[in-house]
Amino acid sequence: MNVLVINAGSSSLKYQLLNPQTETLLAVGLCERIGIDGKFTYKPQLDGKETLKAIDVAMPTHSEAIQAVLNALVDEKNGVIASMKEIDAVGHRVVHGGDVFSGSVLITDDVMKALEDCIPLAPLHNPANITGINACVAVMGADVPQVGVFDTAFHQTMPAKAFTYALPYKYYTEDKVRRYGFHGTSHKYVAGRAAAMLGKDVADLKLVSCHLGNGSSVTAIDAGKSVDTSMGFTPLAGLPMGTRSGDIDAGIMEYLMNKHNMDITEMVSILNKKSGVFGVSDLSSDFRDLENAGKDGNAEAALSVEMFNYGVKKLIGSYAAAMGGVDAVIFTAGVGENSASQRLDIAGGLEFMGITMDAEANKVRGEETVISTADSKVKVLLIPTNEELMIAMDTAAIVSAL
Amino acid sequence: MNVLVINAGSSSLKYQLLNPQTETLLAVGLCERIGIDGKFTYKPQLDGKETLKAIDVAMPTHSEAIQAVLNALVDEKNGVIASMKEIDAVGHRVVHGGDVFSGSVLITDDVMKALEDCIPLAPLHNPANITGINACVAVMGADVPQVGVFDTAFHQTMPAKAFTYALPYKYYTEDKVRRYGFHGTSHKYVAGRAAAMLGKDVADLKLVSCHLGNGSSVTAIDAGKSVDTSMGFTPLAGLPMGTRSGDIDAGIMEYLMNKHNMDITEMVSILNKKSGVFGVSDLSSDFRDLENAGKDGNAEAALSVEMFNYGVKKLIGSYAAAMGGVDAVIFTAGVGENSASQRLDIAGGLEFMGITMDAEANKVRGEETVISTADSKVKVLLIPTNEELMIAMDTAAIVSAL
Repeated sequence: MNVLVINAGSSSLKYQLLNPQTETLLAVGLCERIGIDGKFTYKPQLDGKETLKAIDVAMPTHSEAIQAVLNALVDEKNGVIASMKEIDAVGHRVVHGGDVFSGSVLITDDVMKALEDCIPLAPLHNPANITGINACVAVMGADVPQVGVFDTAFHQTMPAKAFTYALPYKYYTEDKVRRYGFHGTSHKYVAGRAAAMLGKDVADLKLVSCHLGNGSSVTAIDAGKSVDTSMGFTPLAGLPMGTRSGDIDAGIMEYLMNKHNMDITEMVSILNKKSGVFGVSDLSSDFRDLENAGKDGNAEAALSVEMFNYGVKKLIGSYAAAMGGVDAVIFTAGVGENSASQRLDIAGGLEFMGITMDAEANKVRGEETVISTADSKVKVLLIPTNEELMIAMDTAAIVSAL
Repeated sequence: MNVLVINAGSSSLKYQLLNPQTETLLAVGLCERIGIDGKFTYKPQLDGKETLKAIDVAMPTHSEAIQAVLNALVDEKNGVIASMKEIDAVGHRVVHGGDVFSGSVLITDDVMKALEDCIPLAPLHNPANITGINACVAVMGADVPQVGVFDTAFHQTMPAKAFTYALPYKYYTEDKVRRYGFHGTSHKYVAGRAAAMLGKDVADLKLVSCHLGNGSSVTAIDAGKSVDTSMGFTPLAGLPMGTRSGDIDAGIMEYLMNKHNMDITEMVSILNKKSGVFGVSDLSSDFRDLENAGKDGNAEAALSVEMFNYGVKKLIGSYAAAMGGVDAVIFTAGVGENSASQRLDIAGGLEFMGITMDAEANKVRGEETVISTADSKVKVLLIPTNEELMIAMDTAAIVSAL
């Protein structure tokens, strides 16, 4: 079975064609500048096929973008499938499923209505996701099943004590203000891989999953279920990130808004775009730049990385306490997969809770491996995430059951 | 040596006269409705002396309040000292010492200037504290030493990774936005008592101190120094509290302010006064009320207590990770000293990190005792706080060194 995985943004569209059963990737690519001029990138994964890099293709709307993807996939010379009939289903990444979707779902009219209802919760992302779905249906026809896979769904198992904010309760019941959490597809994927690596049933494991990238979140996963996560109502919450502040004292916002005559839009824009490790360092949101600058003596760059690592370390302790223990800690995503020094700083010094890092084994990038010592009671795992594969797997499972 | 301890609010003034060397309390009381009509309460702690309860005493300003205190203390019939000469010094609780004061300090003109500079950081509290100091000097004369003891001072030992927010760095360097932390006098006091109870030097201990009351904060204390604390730039941050939200996703504020057409003043007022366990329960900010209502089947009341306990549990794990271990967990303040059920809910289930509660020993209120099992690797201690004694001790130490 081949699944086309679509991640639609407001002016971009990422895609992959893959077979979730064999885990074979057939093609991957990107449409950019949709609604402006249109740039198309296509990277077939079969021998002898040619890559297209940011070539000009007119894309007034997402429909032309999808059509360009399909044209490339079935292209006589460089395509990877003979016809569109070889695409069995489309899996769409959808950012926000509110508290309606606790799992992936076949797209129907009712589902589309529910996605519209979630727009106020993700005003920047959900409209683009909806546009992507509509474009696929328009171009591919109603016969190809479309599946929605939500960033929030995995976290719908959190108990009320973890998802409720200490606010007037009507903001939850009437306005749907609660912790939703994000990166759910990634956390779910690595939890499954961790169980496979450890040769155990995920139902028997307490896991702390650290998805550390430009956006970062840590999730407590007990018996395969998310029981707490660091992102909140929005992806601004939790850890400091590339440019995001993470959790904050609301008193700071009042103080700064009054002092600098800012409104809430401007303030939250600063918290989203000018804060995090970029804000502290005033240099970069890229951890590699910051580590290098830190080594060259830039104190704020070094501090920004140290703060981030310290925040992750505290969440590991926090979630272990929440679950009454932890069997494995997982590192994934850009920073988690690639920065040996940050992993060591985060998970080092936690012997009191049974975590002993293996500094040698940790000197590795982007491969699935154990980075704790053989006698470490709690295993530390490096697991490259694969959200597209997870979306394709969920999509295949739903389509197979039709 | 007798020290008069003063905690001045905008329209109230709490006082105690005590001897920090013998830890003898001579009198305690309260002036209320200062600037309105004036109510005076005086509770002498010597046999045969009569209590005054909220009697009418005109108090147009804090000076008349201080004068009423002194009159009562030296009163021929019900006083506890023969003359004002028996008051060797006055210790003032001051809420905010900014990053200027890392310990208690003799009040001088320069110190008064620095306190004025801290007003923007604590606009509701510091002006009242300053008024209290000025009133004491005016009434008692310049010869009686006045000492300032700051809620923030104990936390000035925090490292940058713990006190820096992930915001544009100029907000720290130019606007002094950083984590300050509060309840420092209480955390310092119980840390000292914990060392005494354990028969160890505080320099050899890693402690997590849980000050749980209407306002709550948890502090990581390594070798006698605060290395992290849950309150932040303001006392709104950290845990959910009686009426305060604790840390929050800034995205929630933007969402609610836009949806309900609120400005930041109104929003932060709700976060300070209508949130916390009161907000969730829509019933009470008093944990005894909430526990009782929970037992009677009020789900939101039960949830509010559960959320609070869960937050404290996570902070214990978080700070143990921050310090690379913990030797003792301390419970103090109203809830910490009196709610056996909450202590058990908070510290139960943490055997993975060496904490084993003794449910029987825990059935106790307000006395200094060990509430973990004899073989618990990490000790759990109940320690009634005594901020006034700590203020008097600090004051005596400074005055003795003059």
